[in-house]
Parts: sequence; C-alpha cells; structure tokens
Amino acid sequence: MSAEATFAATKVLPNSPELGQLLYSFVSELYPICRSITGNGLRETLRLIAEKIPLQIHEVPSGTPAFDWTVPSEWNIRDAYIKNSRGERVVDFQRSNLHVVNYSIPTRRKLSLRELRANLHSLPQHPDWIPYRTSYYRETWGFCISQRELDALPEGEYEAVIDSSLEQGHLSYGELFLPGETAEEILVSTHCCHPSLCNDNLSGVAVATFLAQALAQRTRRYSYRFLFIPGTIGSIAWLSRNEQVAPKIRHGLVLACVGDRGGFSYKKSRRGNAEIDRAILHLLNHSGEPHKIREFSPYGYDERQYCSPGFDLPVGCLTRTPHGEFPEYHTSADNLDFVTAEALAGTLGQCLEIFTLLERNHTYRNTNPKCEPQLGRRGLYRELGGQAEAEIRELAMLWVLNLSDGENSLLDVAERSGLRFAAIEQAAASLERHGLLTRQLK
Amino acid sequence: MSAEATFAATKVLPNSPELGQLLYSFVSELYPICRSITGNGLRETLRLIAEKIPLQIHEVPSGTPAFDWTVPSEWNIRDAYIKNSRGERVVDFQRSNLHVVNYSIPTRRKLSLRELRANLHSLPQHPDWIPYRTSYYRETWGFCISQRELDALPEGEYEAVIDSSLEQGHLSYGELFLPGETAEEILVSTHCCHPSLCNDNLSGVAVATFLAQALAQRTRRYSYRFLFIPGTIGSIAWLSRNEQVAPKIRHGLVLACVGDRGGFSYKKSRRGNAEIDRAILHLLNHSGEPHKIREFSPYGYDERQYCSPGFDLPVGCLTRTPHGEFPEYHTSADNLDFVTAEALAGTLGQCLEIFTLLERNHTYRNTNPKCEPQLGRRGLYRELGGQAEAEIRELAMLWVLNLSDGENSLLDVAERSGLRFAAIEQAAASLERHGLLTRQLK
Amino acid sequence: MSAEATFAATKVLPNSPELGQLLYSFVSELYPICRSITGNGLRETLRLIAEKIPLQIHEVPSGTPAFDWTVPSEWNIRDAYIKNSRGERVVDFQRSNLHVVNYSIPTRRKLSLRELRANLHSLPQHPDWIPYRTSYYRETWGFCISQRELDALPEGEYEAVIDSSLEQGHLSYGELFLPGETAEEILVSTHCCHPSLCNDNLSGVAVATFLAQALAQRTRRYSYRFLFIPGTIGSIAWLSRNEQVAPKIRHGLVLACVGDRGGFSYKKSRRGNAEIDRAILHLLNHSGEPHKIREFSPYGYDERQYCSPGFDLPVGCLTRTPHGEFPEYHTSADNLDFVTAEALAGTLGQCLEIFTLLERNHTYRNTNPKCEPQLGRRGLYRELGGQAEAEIRELAMLWVLNLSDGENSLLDVAERSGLRFAAIEQAAASLERHGLLTRQLK
Repeated sequence: MSAEATFAATKVLPNSPELGQLLYSFVSELYPICRSITGNGLRETLRLIAEKIPLQIHEVPSGTPAFDWTVPSEWNIRDAYIKNSRGERVVDFQRSNLHVVNYSIPTRRKLSLRELRANLHSLPQHPDWIPYRTSYYRETWGFCISQRELDALPEGEYEAVIDSSLEQGHLSYGELFLPGETAEEILVSTHCCHPSLCNDNLSGVAVATFLAQALAQRTRRYSYRFLFIPGTIGSIAWLSRNEQVAPKIRHGLVLACVGDRGGFSYKKSRRGNAEIDRAILHLLNHSGEPHKIREFSPYGYDERQYCSPGFDLPVGCLTRTPHGEFPEYHTSADNLDFVTAEALAGTLGQCLEIFTLLERNHTYRNTNPKCEPQLGRRGLYRELGGQAEAEIRELAMLWVLNLSDGENSLLDVAERSGLRFAAIEQAAASLERHGLLTRQLK
Repeated sequence: MSAEATFAATKVLPNSPELGQLLYSFVSELYPICRSITGNGLRETLRLIAEKIPLQIHEVPSGTPAFDWTVPSEWNIRDAYIKNSRGERVVDFQRSNLHVVNYSIPTRRKLSLRELRANLHSLPQHPDWIPYRTSYYRETWGFCISQRELDALPEGEYEAVIDSSLEQGHLSYGELFLPGETAEEILVSTHCCHPSLCNDNLSGVAVATFLAQALAQRTRRYSYRFLFIPGTIGSIAWLSRNEQVAPKIRHGLVLACVGDRGGFSYKKSRRGNAEIDRAILHLLNHSGEPHKIREFSPYGYDERQYCSPGFDLPVGCLTRTPHGEFPEYHTSADNLDFVTAEALAGTLGQCLEIFTLLERNHTYRNTNPKCEPQLGRRGLYRELGGQAEAEIRELAMLWVLNLSDGENSLLDVAERSGLRFAAIEQAAASLERHGLLTRQLK
Repeated sequence: MSAEATFAATKVLPNSPELGQLLYSFVSELYPICRSITGNGLRETLRLIAEKIPLQIHEVPSGTPAFDWTVPSEWNIRDAYIKNSRGERVVDFQRSNLHVVNYSIPTRRKLSLRELRANLHSLPQHPDWIPYRTSYYRETWGFCISQRELDALPEGEYEAVIDSSLEQGHLSYGELFLPGETAEEILVSTHCCHPSLCNDNLSGVAVATFLAQALAQRTRRYSYRFLFIPGTIGSIAWLSRNEQVAPKIRHGLVLACVGDRGGFSYKKSRRGNAEIDRAILHLLNHSGEPHKIREFSPYGYDERQYCSPGFDLPVGCLTRTPHGEFPEYHTSADNLDFVTAEALAGTLGQCLEIFTLLERNHTYRNTNPKCEPQLGRRGLYRELGGQAEAEIRELAMLWVLNLSDGENSLLDVAERSGLRFAAIEQAAASLERHGLLTRQLK
C-alpha cells in the first residue's frame, strides 16, 4: 500500500470536533504497552502508528556505533513479580509495567525483606504513586512500587522474578518523509520509549501521528520529516545515519508532554532567534492564552542532540507543562486522567498554526517602492467589512508595502507592526494579487 | 524682489514676545479660505505665505503622472447651499466651508429629506460640530452639518446646490530653498490643503513660514528646503519631480497639528535611529515637559511618502496632539479657539532648538588623546561660575575629551554622558578654542 | 635581595585569618606619614611597601614632560603652625598633617584674624572634622581646621608659619612586575599620594601590596604589573614612559577606597564590556552581597588616564563606597576607625577571585561536537555528592559541551547558562581530563 493510499484511508479533518477523541483514543490504545528504548513494545508502538501513517520502520543492530555512543542490546520482558512466602504476587508487572525498572536484567532469587528493599524504588512524598525508573547503561534490576505498598510488606522471605532478556537485537525507530515543493525540511521529532506514561510521551506520539496525517493532505512548500524515536539514543542514531540530511533542516520541533491541561511552554533553539523561535513567540504572544517562553538550555529532550554544537539545528521544543514541573512526571499518575482530548487537539491545532506561518513567511519586494501606490483606485481601501477591521486591513497593507524592500519577511513585518501574522499575510496576498508585490526567491 | 529683500522686509526675532501673536494672526488670516488639494484657495494660501517668505510657487498640470498616481483635476467652488421649501439657506457654504464635502462635483437638484440625508454627514457624538469630509478620488457630492442642525430639518423638499468645478487645471505647491554652507539639506514639509481647520494644519503652515524667516537670518551649515504642499499627492508629486534632490536630504521634519495646548509628540522616521530621531529624543527627554515618542508607522502625514522604501529618508513627524487623538480633529471645533499663540511660538522655538542641535552636531578629534590634557593651566578648570555649574562644565569637557576619538559626534557624547547637548557643545567650543579639539570632516 | 627572596620572607596565606590584621596594621603604619604627589612622605611610603614586596622605585625629575603635563617641583614640609598672640600653637601640623594645604609654599607672616581667615579652610557641615585640601598647580598656602576650632579663634594677631620647600626634585613611584606564562598583563594601579587618609587610599595601597604577595606565590598565566603612584600625574608620567607596555595590558584594575564597611562598587572601563567588566559583574552578581555597577565616566581616579582615547585600556575601578559618596571623604574622619580589617581582607579576596576568573577564562572546543558524548560510561554522570550538587555539575558539563564551539569562553558559558563561573570551570576541567574538550589557543 502506497503512502498516499494509507493517508487516504485514515484521513482526518484537522479541526473536526472528533479530532480530540481520535487523539485520546490513540493514546489509550498505546497506553498498556511496555515500551523501552529497544524491544518489542517499541516495535508494536511503531506498528500501531504505521496503521495511521505510512511510517518507515528502521532497525539498527545492537553494537552499531553512533558518534560517541553504541546502540545497546535489545531488552524484552515477558513477566516480572515479587511473591511473598505464601506465593502471592505482591508486586506484579502484569498490573503495571512501571513496576519493573526499565532494562532490568533477568532475575530470579529469594531474599529477605531487607535485601529486597535495596532493589525497591518508591516515592515517599506521593505514597500512592509508582515511580518510573530506568537503568539503560548500568546492568542492574529493580522494582518500583508505591510507598503505601512498600510500607505494608511484612517481614519474611520473598521471591523476585524478572523474566527479561538483554541480547543482541535492534533499536527500532519510525520515520515519515512528506516531500514538499522544496528540499528544505521541517523536522518533527517525538520520543516513544516510555512505557505506560501518557503525557510523557504518548501525547507527543499521538499529536505527531495526526499532524502527519493533516499535513499529508496539504500542499507543502517545505518537506516534512517525522521521527518517532527512543529518547537520546534514538536521535543520536538517526543523526549519525543522516548527517547529510541535517543541513536541509530549516526548522524543527520536538514534541513532548503536550496533552496535559497546562498552557504552552516553548523552549527556544540554541540559536535563540531562529525563524521557528520567532514564529512561535509571535503566535503565543498573540494567542491571548497564558504561556511561557524559555531560553535554550542543553537539558531536556532530543533538542539536546539536534542543538549540539556540531549540528546547531534550529530545533525548539514545544510542551504544555514542561518535564519535571508537574508532580505526576515520571510516575504512574501520568495516566489517562492526566491528559485530555481537548489539550491534545489544541496542541495539534497550535502546530498547524506554526507550520502555516512558516509555510507562508515569504519575503516580498514592493513593485512600487517610491511613495505609496494608490490603493483607492484598486479598490483596496476600505473595500469591505466594518470600520475596525478595515483599519487593520489598511494598516497591514501599508506596513507590508513600507517594509517590503526585499529584506523583511512577513514575520519581520508582523513583529515590527505589532499586527498579527495572519493580518499581514492576508494583506500581502491581496497586494500580490494586484501586482503590488513580488515574492523574493531566497 | 529678491529672497533676501523679502526676508528683510518681514524679519522677526525668533524669541520675541510678539512672535506668538504674529503666528496666531497668520493662522487667523488663513482660516477663512476654502483650501483643497488643488484650486484657488490653495493658491491664495501660497500667495499669502509668499508675502512673508520668497516662496517659489509650482503649478503641476492635471493628468501629470507621479509614480503610481496622477495629478487630479483642479477643484474650485464658488458657492453651495441647501435651501428649504421656503427658499431659506439651511446649510450655507458661505458660513463655513466645511459644510461641503471637499471635491464635491457640481450639483443642483431638488430632493426629499430622506434623499437628502443620504448625502449628509454629521457627528452624533458631537452634536454641535460640523465634520470635515473629502472625496478626492471618487466623484460624489455631499454636505456636512452638525447633528443638531440635521435633527432639526423638517420633512419637505430641499434644494441642494453646489456651484463647483472639477476641471483640467493644476496642483499648486510652494517651495523655498535656503542655501547653506553645504549641499546637504534639512527638509521641512507641511500640508496646506485643509479648509477652515486651525490645528490641522494652519498651525504647521504658520510655524513653517516663520521658521523659514528665522533660519534665513542665520548662518547655515545645512541648506534648508521648505515645502508647503497638499497632503499625499503633494509630496508624491514633489518627490516624482525631485528624485535627484532626495539623496541630499540628511534630516527632515513633517510639521502638523502643532498649535494645540498639548505637549509634543514625535514620531520617528522609518530608520528609527536617524540623527534627527536621536536629536529630538534628546531634546524632549531633557525638556522636563511631558511628551511622547512614537515608533514609525506607515500611517500619518507625508512622512509616509518620504519614508517609503524607495526613498527611506530620515524624516520624522513633529506634532503636539497627534491626528485622531483629539476629538476636535477634522471637525469645525478645530478652530481659532483650539490653537494658541503660545503653543505656536513654542513649536517654532522647539524646531529652532532641533535645527541648532543638528547644525552643531560635529564630530571632533581630541588633539591630545593620550591622557587628559592639563585643563588647569589653560584656565579651563573651575574658571567661572558657581560650583554646580562648574562641575557640569568640567564633566562635560572630560566627556568630550574622552569620547572625541573621531568616531563620536557631540550628540553621541551627550547621549552617553547623560548631559545636555548644550553643555556638551559649549564644552567642545571651549576646548576647540584652546586647540584641544579639531573638527572632523565627514 | 631578589624579588623571590623578598616574597619568601613576607609570605602570607591569602585566606589566613590573620590577613585582615596584617592589612590593617600596614594601613596603621602608613597612616601618620605626610604624603603628597612628590616628596619624602611619598618616598617613605614606597620604602615601606618595598619591605613587603620587591618594588622598583622610580624617580622622575621635576620638569620632565609627560604628554600635556610637566612633572612638578618636589614638595617637602618639615613643620607648620599658627601661633596666637601668646605664642601658643592653635593649629599644629605635628598633630595632623591635614592642617596644611598640601603643596603650600613656604610662609612666615603675622596677620590679623580677618587676614588669616582668608587662608583657612573648614567644613561648616561637619564642625569637628578637618578638611583635606591641595593646591598642586597654583602656588598658594593655607591651613585646614575644624569649624569648631575656627569659631573659637579670638580676635588678635596670629603668626602663620609653613616650613615647606617647593624645589627641583623628583616624582617618585613604585612598580612591581610579576612575569607570567604570557607577556599579556594585568595592571593593578593604586594612588599613594594622600596624607593621613585611610580609605582614600591607604586601603588601596595595603590591598595592592598583599595582593602582589599572594600572586607572587601562584603560577600565573598572565603577567602582573602593580603601580603605586601619585594620582593623575603619576599615571600620566608612567604612561608617557611606558607607551610600549600599554598594548600588552589585557585587563586592569584601579583600587581605591576599598577599606570601608560598604559593599563593592565597580565602575566599568570605557569599553563597557571588556572581559574584566564582565568578570566583575559576574562575580558581584553571584555574590549575594549588595553591590553597585556603574557605567564608565571620565571622572574618578587614574582610570581616567588609562581609559583616555589614545590608550582606551580595559581598566575599571573597584571601590567599596565610591569617592564623594561618604561624608568622611577627604576629611580627617577618613581615619583608622573608618576602615576595618575585615573589609580590607574582603577586598583582597575579591581581587583574587577576579584574577582567578581571568586566569581560568579559557575558550574550549568540544572534541565530540556532534550530539552529546556519553558521560555515563566515563563516570561523569552523578558520580559523587548530593542530588542538587550533582545536578548543577551535570548541567554545567552540558552547557560547556554545548557552547564549546571555539567561540565561547567559559565566562560566555557562565553568562548564558546563569551558572557560576566556578561551576563552569570545574565542569570544563573535568571534561578536559576526559579528553572531551581541547583548549583553544587565542
């Protein structure tokens, strides 16, 4: 089945009322799977994404070098539990995959409560929540349980069993390329390596999947590349295999934690004033909604790799509440109640707005740069609509004409004028139709 | 009569106590004339200005192309009225020239009150004021009346008569060039196309006229060019006929609405940090008076044309209360009570202060750049005056010496030091007399 | 005796508890001496400094030209007094050397109280304090007394005697050069021309002396040059004799008024963003202590000469309470009570911190610029210490790696990250040890 055929089969209207439900359903479908940075849970997740978009799934062998890193052994897990002396499962991977420290080595041993405790992780400040812990690069094993369960364990002998494997295998990731009119790319990257955690980051996975669907149905100036990757090692592996692609990336966005009820936070790219940084600032500042803008820092998600000094790509990170700033972060409380259909759909809408701005952010040249052209005889002066709207439309035309000297993009015009990009872009379209502007080729 | 002869005959001392009265009298003399963007009222206005300064009056034929525009037909009006069924003039152009929509085509027709109303303009929120309306580029006719008069019109048949003409003719404008030591020019542009409106813009016309008189009596580093032009089409026509002059314009000021009781507002040039922008900011910020500084926007007076991207001249706009920000704007309430002699004289003084700064804003080089020169043995240290003054004088000398490396103008020194330009300029003059500075040629 | 031998004999641990006492004792030892811009008091002061550090003492003959200046005659004073009619000394130089206007010409005359008053200086607003006055370049004589003493003088005949000399001689200054690994220099300049005034500037003299001791015991990347000079004429004379040295000065600090109880004030160099300006801002802003940052002005201490346009050296001025901003300034109240051991030691510590930063402010290149290196397998991730500290250490490493593209110094990294320089520098050292950074040569 071709990519276009797949898209046609799963088409969705970006602003349809059902969109939020579709996003939320996809999160729900993916929620039970035990993902990690390698393994069958990750592979199954990519397969489910590929049911919606024509994803290309890559498998990178364990041991493959990737810059300073090496692709790790593949981890798989079938079962894990702690049994008490009566043979009852007091901790059970089948009830929550968070119970096992991710990447735990195979284990089967009997031990006292005191010995067991050394391998248990809990959250005293949130006694009902199970923490999420990983140990990708140090071989160990462990269980995560709620503080309340931990406190309730009586003295006695326990049996800890982890039926896992850590063997030569592959690191899987998914990639979708949507060709546009130009070879310049917009990158969307989202991590899909966490087990049953919704906001971090099934929210990003779902939004990216449906975003790809929406963009597939549009005429695209830019080409788009979607990456569904395990965090850190996934982006490093991708970059090491795609060094020649990196220079084509004109704009990029990492999506994570985009399903909670909080307002948007945008972390700028390392460059700090890249076009995508300015585009998102403009839109959020005009949104009327609470939001936060953060300067770049080298701590966070895969933007760390895209913004490493050897690449320095213009890639920012869009979240709602950022990682570490909600107590549910990396706990069992980041569940299906923590994300909402409305928030997921809102993020998708915001992304489309961002990409629409980038698509339309052309630079024009005023064909009549000496004095204003006579707008009135072209019917461009107060031709339609109410007074306030007409004033903004005229003002937008005057700003576009005044600043279109071949140096200023429409976003530059919007920033300097204080008007919304949409108003500036409509004015430019109108002026271009009347031959008063010509688009500059870069 | 030569220019100098004319100036001698009308000489006025810039800071004389009578100046405000002279300015106000000139506004009063011009007030009754029905001006438009062409026609005899405009021509008569220029003739009265030419009685005070040796104005060169230009006549541009209707139909002359000017960039994207065409000089319109000439409009003249002799009479206009609305008579009621008893033959009484209920609206009479002879009482106020604002009663007729400027550029109304000839009209003579009988019509019902309902039909008449479609061609009447009023201001419900200011029931005693007559609005000012124009229709330069769309052929129509109309009357403007106060809401109270409108409401008082009984049902019945009316006769609307406009005895106007719209024919091949000329667009008139006035130009005065005062040569200076250099060919670099300071432009002063003011619109003179509005009928009986005082602040907008007989205030600008009067100030520009007497400013020209004052400058004519000075030694001038810069050449000065004064333009008395109809708004928009006047500056466009002038620019289209003087493209070779434009590059000589080093600084420019549009004067409008400079006679009301408000503080000064300055709108920066498109460049935003042109020398004139910085000069006016410096003076207003040190004035101790309330004032406003606005960023450039492409909406306003003729700076729109001077600052169009094909020219991008360093031309700002000085007003008192800006257009549209006083309720009397474009109504009969912008009358002789709305402007004051004091405000007019204050604007003229402010303009002279601005031009004095520009004239004196030289760049110097410290002739003794290694360590401070010994001011004491030259009598430059605390030589005169009180303690506080002496401290400022010394500090000003130290700043001038320290920054006069050939890169900083005196305005740069004033800005960085936080001292007034006048103090910096006096210090420089003193240091230059003692051979401690040499003026840089550009 | 060689320099190193001298240093060894007077070695002091920078952070020893006794340091403040050593500094304060040195101030006390120097306090009684009657210094001026030339003469034996200045010479004696330099001799006492030379007992602690291997100072080279220069003698510049009177009449020597120094740019626009000339080295003045040497002034010496043996005694001075005012006797009343009973032959009692009512004003006595032996009690306070401030009683005589510095550089007073020899005088011996009888005169009435009224005549005497014309040569007396007092401070009405501080009736118990003796003011400090000088007249270096205008030949005159005078006495300074407290207002209370002045008011108590009865009518009668007085005898005013100043047993001074103003003759061909020398201007003395001290210089110490500590060679470093490179020829680039850090300049420390302090004036030592004031008589019995502690904060202005025995504080600077003492701190500079012990700072030189401390630096002599360190490995130095930079060479250091200490100047103990009379104000203004001293720095001018030094610069005129060392024009070839000036270009080697990479950073410089004038020390004055550094012993009072106030927080630090730093006045930036003329350049405004020199490395030393940024270093001191960084340290003071992270100090958690109240402090003030001032922009450069050409009024102050010898930075006026170092920052004259012909040199424009990156030299700032570190003080505690700046000159003129404490009422005790230039009065007898700037005495041994006004300065404290703690403040003096604190200034020395601050200077060492500044120079340590400059010494260590290298620029690195990430050897692994594409994606992050794997810190974990090198034991660089959470290897030691508590959670909060470990997080800062990791974050500092990530910032250093991210910004070390050969363009950013460690101070640049500290500024952008918001982390302390010390944390950044430790991270860089750690990364360098693991081969992840290489130092850039300038």
